[in-house]
Order: sequence, then structure tokens, then C-alpha cells
Amino acid sequence: MPVDPISLDRSRPHVVIVGGGFGGLYAARALGGPEARVTLIDRRNHHLFQPLLYQVATATLSPANIAMPIRRVLRRQKNTSVLLAEAVSIDPDRRVVNLSDGELSYDWLILAAGATHSYFGRDDWSTHAPGLKTIDDALEIRRRFLIAFERAERETDPARRRAELTFVVIGGGPTGVELAGAMAEIAYRAISRDFRSVDTATAKIILAEAGDRILAEFPTELSARAKLDLEKLGVEVRLNARVTNVQSRIVAIGSERIEAASVIWAAGVQASPIGKSLGVPIDRAGRVIVNPDLTIPGHPEIFVIGDMASATDSKTGKAAPGVCPAAMQMGLYAARIIVAEIRAKRELKNQPLRRAFKYSDKGVLATIGRNKGIAWIGRLKFSGALAWLLWALVHVMFLIGFRNRLLVMIEWAWLYFFFDRGARLITGDSPKPGLEPVVAPKA
Amino acid sequence: MPVDPISLDRSRPHVVIVGGGFGGLYAARALGGPEARVTLIDRRNHHLFQPLLYQVATATLSPANIAMPIRRVLRRQKNTSVLLAEAVSIDPDRRVVNLSDGELSYDWLILAAGATHSYFGRDDWSTHAPGLKTIDDALEIRRRFLIAFERAERETDPARRRAELTFVVIGGGPTGVELAGAMAEIAYRAISRDFRSVDTATAKIILAEAGDRILAEFPTELSARAKLDLEKLGVEVRLNARVTNVQSRIVAIGSERIEAASVIWAAGVQASPIGKSLGVPIDRAGRVIVNPDLTIPGHPEIFVIGDMASATDSKTGKAAPGVCPAAMQMGLYAARIIVAEIRAKRELKNQPLRRAFKYSDKGVLATIGRNKGIAWIGRLKFSGALAWLLWALVHVMFLIGFRNRLLVMIEWAWLYFFFDRGARLITGDSPKPGLEPVVAPKA
Repeated sequence: MPVDPISLDRSRPHVVIVGGGFGGLYAARALGGPEARVTLIDRRNHHLFQPLLYQVATATLSPANIAMPIRRVLRRQKNTSVLLAEAVSIDPDRRVVNLSDGELSYDWLILAAGATHSYFGRDDWSTHAPGLKTIDDALEIRRRFLIAFERAERETDPARRRAELTFVVIGGGPTGVELAGAMAEIAYRAISRDFRSVDTATAKIILAEAGDRILAEFPTELSARAKLDLEKLGVEVRLNARVTNVQSRIVAIGSERIEAASVIWAAGVQASPIGKSLGVPIDRAGRVIVNPDLTIPGHPEIFVIGDMASATDSKTGKAAPGVCPAAMQMGLYAARIIVAEIRAKRELKNQPLRRAFKYSDKGVLATIGRNKGIAWIGRLKFSGALAWLLWALVHVMFLIGFRNRLLVMIEWAWLYFFFDRGARLITGDSPKPGLEPVVAPKA
Repeated sequence: MPVDPISLDRSRPHVVIVGGGFGGLYAARALGGPEARVTLIDRRNHHLFQPLLYQVATATLSPANIAMPIRRVLRRQKNTSVLLAEAVSIDPDRRVVNLSDGELSYDWLILAAGATHSYFGRDDWSTHAPGLKTIDDALEIRRRFLIAFERAERETDPARRRAELTFVVIGGGPTGVELAGAMAEIAYRAISRDFRSVDTATAKIILAEAGDRILAEFPTELSARAKLDLEKLGVEVRLNARVTNVQSRIVAIGSERIEAASVIWAAGVQASPIGKSLGVPIDRAGRVIVNPDLTIPGHPEIFVIGDMASATDSKTGKAAPGVCPAAMQMGLYAARIIVAEIRAKRELKNQPLRRAFKYSDKGVLATIGRNKGIAWIGRLKFSGALAWLLWALVHVMFLIGFRNRLLVMIEWAWLYFFFDRGARLITGDSPKPGLEPVVAPKA
């Protein structure tokens, strides 16, 4: 009997969670008790493990390896409904979430709608330089990357061939570094024997970073090490390289024009626009500036968490970073407050005092390629194979579902021992709206 | 060094293979010797194991599990180039394959471009009832199937909800039967606990077959058994049910109108239109009527194989069926003739006599669902768990690549023991051109 009374019991306070990323999902799980009924809404039916999305874009993993239907994850939690729906705006006064096709009223709201890539006001660049946030984005990047070699194989004009084999990744954060590293490994190693007339080792992979170092969230010596590692893989790392224009098959860095058939955007993110509708101050990246308890001024029932929130620690003055652990911690934090206050009310006790949210930094990890990683954990800084292995372990651990963990480990083992990637498929015949179509071969 | 002299050595006879399905791939492998240089062209970069494509459409397998880059499969074969290109027509007199963007001359030609679904002249139906031939088709069907439950979960009008949960599969061949069986298992078992307000067990899955039995290539008693098995799973099997119209959310069977949000076409196939350009007789399904040696009249250098060929055994008068084993056998047959005749010519010997192609029937297998299969091998006819197991073993065996075999077995084991499917993802935001867009939720 799927129709469950608890999830429909209107006498319980209704918690609405917008977004099934790490923040929303961890909040939902912590709200599985009898205190409330919970509705989680998301535009997509799946929770996505974004830290590994670049591996879908670079043909190592399949989308299903890193995604899980949200309702499958929460199916045992009988007080929780999951709805595939798009939240458009919030009406804090009426306590209503406006959907693209209806509305949903709430007693408590947790906004965890995340962020998307931002072109810093140059949305016309998005046509030529897709970003990486969704499965569809990843498949589009995979398609472009793989098709470039196919076109190069058929191209006879040397200049055009060179452009086909030039790849520019814009942005030296973790995503850009991981993408560039994986692309170099594929071009210089995995597929070199698969082509006959093109030498894939002549491919050029450029990582363009506007700042003076990559992976700026790490200490300078680790940034330098990562740069060295990338260069060892064959990536051309350009620092202080501000992209001034992106057109069809052209990237301009300063006054230099680079002919490149494939350009990938990994430079900036912008919080979900739904935050604006709250009518409270937001920062430059569109994030809602929240109180120490992650709520918005005047609305203790509205929590904004994860990449949508600009949360500053009142003691240290440091902002919580836009990473998965921060989103998880915020989700748990908000859920616990809600449970405690519902309980107190039911038992006619005084409301417990809300302690400020405090981000607990467990360290940061990044991978550059095979046996190459960097790690910064407390006072420990290290790099190389150990950091890479730790990165792999942590990422497998946080994948949801035992099957996914198993399959990802098999794919990684295969890649490690045979240098062979399992998902080198060009799919998606129809050009995506708003993206420059990439037609298959050029004679 | 990827640039290999053999594949470019123009003194060797040039064999062009159009199509990287089973026929083309088996032909290419058998042409790996020093006699010829080989060019295989395909519109897609991957060989697809079509018999398991329905498992992608029903969320069990990922595309990468059943597809492999063609150039990866043939990479050790140094005399062979693989090109991503679309063949448009053949000019037998000039010995040229016209591509969408160039041309390719040949000394020998193997046409193995396969078939696509056919709407029997009612191409307007294709908008509402997608067929299943490519990975993109499978992902579209998966998307429609999964989204129907999501919409039903949010639908409050009972009649509309009933339509959301009505699925019609048109065509009672292997693909239709496998799809209907898997859809029933998902609706009635796998996902029943995932929804809160909808009872997925109320879903209706209808298999409509125009003839008087399903799986008509099997003996009548096995067809009857398959029908019974489908009915046990909950599928409504309609025989002598000729579809007279398909519109948006409506299927007409005779004078009856069925409201169904999801309709899938598994009824007919049509050979690749490239066969027409040969200027020789074709049959109703667009297949080229070939000589006993699979060539066309007047052109002993042009072989047409697989689903593109209408090949009749001159002794038995029986036509070779449109199945993988027939395509493989034809590919090997054509390749061996080519090798033998090139050798004879080089050694200034008489051309060997071409023996007629003879299809060797190893038997047929079909699966209906968990522990339910039918098998007809020589004089043996059996059904149930043994036939199902045999089906699974044979299919894993013919998958290309050890990794794919391993991963598919893991997915199947998981499904078998936990009734859980690994790829329940709704992806593909952009509607496919020519298909009615399926927007996510309806309030």
C-alpha cells in the first residue's frame, strides 16, 4: 500500500525542502521522525553527486553511477513525500512556495536549491562554452570532447585540425583542474592507439585561470604542486589569464586569440535565482545573506542552506565555503532546530535557544590525475599518490548506495590498470537549446 | 605513433564497410589480415548491443554497459580505419560511397547499415510513439516512462491520473514483449514503495499485437506460454489488435480509444534507405534483394548484409531472419569471400567459386521477465527459468568487452536479488526534435 497516512497527515507541521542536493537530502533524512511531515521538491528526479560529475564528462563513469532517484533514497521514510516540481519563488508572508504549475504551503521551509554556473554577465558565452552542473551538461561536454577527435581524424587541413585538437578549460578551481587533468590523460594516453591518421598526442589542453594560482582554496605550496602535476600530464596552465571573449571556436585571453573547437566553462557559480524572491539582501553571487542560525531576517521558519547561503561565522568572520560538507552540515543543523522546536511546542516547553551555525572544516582534497592529488587536513598538507588515494576513498564513501560504490570502484580499478575508460559514447543527437550545435564530422 | 602506414597503404585493395553493428563489425574483424585495407564508417561512434537496449529503456542498464566505441573494438587491427561519418548513397558505377560531407571510394563494399523503426506510412505517429533503435531512443523512452509516475503522483484528477498510468506498447515481437514485461515488473514491484499518493499497482500496461499471437517467430505453444507469462506479470495482452491511430495521449485500437500518456512503438522496421540508391530491386521493408552470395546483380564487389538484406535460401526458400546471428554470419561470409578472392588474384590463381550463403539457425530465445523465458533450439522447446537463464548467458556472452560483461552481470544480480534498478534517471531536458515534448510535472 503506497498511500501512506503519515505523509498526508495534515495535523503535523509541514516542512518543505526545496532541492535534493546534499543540503536538502541530509535535512530530509534528519527530519524522518514523527514530528513533522516533509515534502522535498526538486526539478530533477535524482540526487547527483556533483564532485564526480567531471568523470561523467570525461567518459569514466556513467550518469547512473553518481545519481540516485531521490524518492528511492527516501523511500523508507514514510513521513516524506518527494515531488518532481520546479520552485519558482517564495512568498514568505503567505508561507507558500510558488511552483511553475501550482503552489505548496509550508510551516517550515528549507531552501537548498544550489547554484548554477555563471558567465559574469556574458551569457552569450554560454552558447560556445558549456558549463558543468547537471548530467545533461556532462553528456554535452563528453560529446564535444569526443567528437573533436573524430573530426580531427577526418580533417586534412592542418590549421583546422590543430583547432579541433585544442581544448580550453576556463577556470582553475577543482572542476577545471579535474577536467583538464582527465582530458590530458585521455588524449595523451587512453585513446592514442585508437586513431589512424591523427596523432592524439598533438592535442593541446589549456587551463586558463584569471587569478595568480589554481585551486586558490589551498595553501600556495599545494597550488604550485597541482600546477606542476598538471604540467607533467601535458596541460598548459595559464595563470593571470583573464578570458575577454568567447566566440564560436575562438577564446580570447587578453589580446591573444586561441582557436579552439572545444571550450568548457568552469569559472564561476551563481546561486539559484529563487533566493532573490525572499526580498532580503543577497551577495554578488546571488547568495542569501543569512542570520547566524541560517534563517532570514524576520522569518525564523525559513532556512537557506548550502550553495544558496552566504553564511559568515560571527566569531571568525569566515564564510562557509560552497562545498558538499558545508551543505550537509547546514542541512543537519536546520533539521535539528526544526525538530527541537516542534517538540518543545508540542510539549508546551520553552523554545530552546538557537545556537549559531558553525562550519566544521574537515579538510580539503583535490585530484589532478592518476596518483596525483593534494590534501590539506588541519595542519597536514600533502600531495601525490596518498592524497589521490584519500580523495578516491572519501568520494566513494559519500556516494549514496552500495551498488554505486561498487560500480564506481570497478570502473576506477579498470581505469587504473588498463588506462581504459568505460563510457566513451557520443550520444544526444539533438542540439541543446541555447548551445551552439556540434555536428558530427567535418570533411 | 598512431599514424599507421598499413591503414593508409593505397596499394592494397580498399574495403569499405558501412555500419558498425554486428554485421559490419564481424566483417571488419575477419578482414584484419594483410590482404586489404579497411575503412568502417558509422554515423555513431559506438557499436550498440541492440538486444539489450530495452534494458536501458527500462532503467536496468546504463548506455555504456551495452555500447563500445567502434574504434576501441578495432584498435589493434592496424589495417583498419574507423570514421564517424554518414553514408548517404552509393554510386556503384564510380565505386564511391557518398557521405553527407564528402565521398569515399572503394574496391569492395559491405553495406551493413541496418534498419530503423517504421510507422507503415504513418510517420505522424512517430511524434507520440517513439521507437527503440538507438541509445537516444532508449533514454527518451526511459524518460517518458519514469516521468509518467512522477506526474501521476502529483495528479489529483482520477481520470487524468489513470491516463498517466496507462502505457501502451505497440507490437508483440521480442522488443515489445521485453519492454512490456520489464515495465510491469517496475510498476508492480520495484517502485511501489517509492510513491506516497499514487498506487503504482494501478498502472495498466497494454501490449497491442495486430496478429493473432505474440513472438510469431516461435512455435504456437511457446507464443501462448509467453502470453500467459506476460499476463501473470500483469500485462494486458491484446491480440488481433490493430492500431488505427496514434495521437497525443490517445491510441485507437479498431474503434476503441485508449487514453494513455505513454505509447511506445515496437511494431515494424524498415531497412536503411541507403539500399535504395543501389538501383536494384528492394522488398516492401526496404531490404535489398540479394543474390545467393549476398551481392547485388552485376556487382560482385558489393555485399549487402544484416537487416538491410533480403536473403532467401535457394534450397529451402526460407529468408534469413533479421537477427544478430544472421548479421554476424553474413559479415563473416562476405569478409571470407573478399579475402579469398584478393589472395587468388594476388597469387594469379583462378577465382574460387562462391558458395551460396546459408543461414545456420542456432535457435531462438526470448525473455519475458524474471525467471520467465522461452527457447526453441533445434527440436527442443522449453520455457521458464531455464530458458530465461540461457537467454541471460547468451546475451552476456555476446556483449563486447569483459568489463561490460562484468558490469551487466552485477546489475542483473542486483536486480534479481533486490528488485532494484540502477538507472532510474530522468535526463534530457531538451525535447527531441520531431517528438512531442514531455514536460515534467502537471499540477
